[in-house]
Amino acid sequence: MAKEPKKLDELFHDTLKDIYFAEKKILTTLPKMAKAAQSGELKAAFEKHRGETEGQIERLEEIFGMIDKKVQGKTCAAIVGITAEGAEIMKEYKGSPALDAGLLAAAQAVEHYEISRYGTLRTWAEELGLDDAASLLQETLDEEEATDQALTKIAMSVVNQEAEAA
Amino acid sequence: MAKEPKKLDELFHDTLKDIYFAEKKILTTLPKMAKAAQSGELKAAFEKHRGETEGQIERLEEIFGMIDKKVQGKTCAAIVGITAEGAEIMKEYKGSPALDAGLLAAAQAVEHYEISRYGTLRTWAEELGLDDAASLLQETLDEEEATDQALTKIAMSVVNQEAEAA
Repeated sequence: MAKEPKKLDELFHDTLKDIYFAEKKILTTLPKMAKAAQSGELKAAFEKHRGETEGQIERLEEIFGMIDKKVQGKTCAAIVGITAEGAEIMKEYKGSPALDAGLLAAAQAVEHYEISRYGTLRTWAEELGLDDAASLLQETLDEEEATDQALTKIAMSVVNQEAEAA
Repeated sequence: MAKEPKKLDELFHDTLKDIYFAEKKILTTLPKMAKAAQSGELKAAFEKHRGETEGQIERLEEIFGMIDKKVQGKTCAAIVGITAEGAEIMKEYKGSPALDAGLLAAAQAVEHYEISRYGTLRTWAEELGLDDAASLLQETLDEEEATDQALTKIAMSVVNQEAEAA
């Protein structure tokens, strides 16, 4: 089989470094969000996702190995911006009944960034004939989508509780 | 009916300003992406979404009116970061067969940010009893999801064409 064009390989590698940086950043952000969260359910969701994130980082490290590249991150301006917005919410809504709603919104923005990145990487891996990498990326994509759905469910219950407490 | 807690009102208003800034930024970015795109199909998709974005901005302006606030944006660090990554792709992959794949990835990251924001805002609008705002936000959410699906379809065909041309 003909080798795929070099440039898509490079784009795959660049984007792998981007999401690796992003996951490492998320790993340090989730404990802060868990600490800040008021609802026990939300705290637990952030803690659960922290554990999943560790596994997702390991999968990325495996994929670097599969393409014979060293494990390396590259500053991802998107995740820096998204997590900066989350940090602003933690500061501005500290002690507010709307804090959890804001944390949920920030977390869902992170999840959606990851969903778009993993969907893209999975498609490229398939195209590049990297079937094992595509499977690992699909596993992570499934986890991110499940996390997003779980957060949506909590978001509904959090805003309802807040309304009832008013 | 009791008025909903002030703080969720504020969070809704803050997030409305955030997405308003983001949409304005996207409106100036889409023509650049359309110009850069190699595939006619992708150019057309970016141009179509530019038109939709104008309508989405008008809806946001209506919603500011519904909550008696002036139309105003607030710097959204997330979209600044996401679009910076897109600009980097345009620069680094100029003339490369992988350019369109990179542009598509950047555009889908933007779409997913918007999907998370509009989903959040729609939920909050419902909770705040802002039914007309919720309907407008749902319309935009439907458009963003349709755009994301259209981009996924183009992404499949773009990477296939690139592989065949190799």
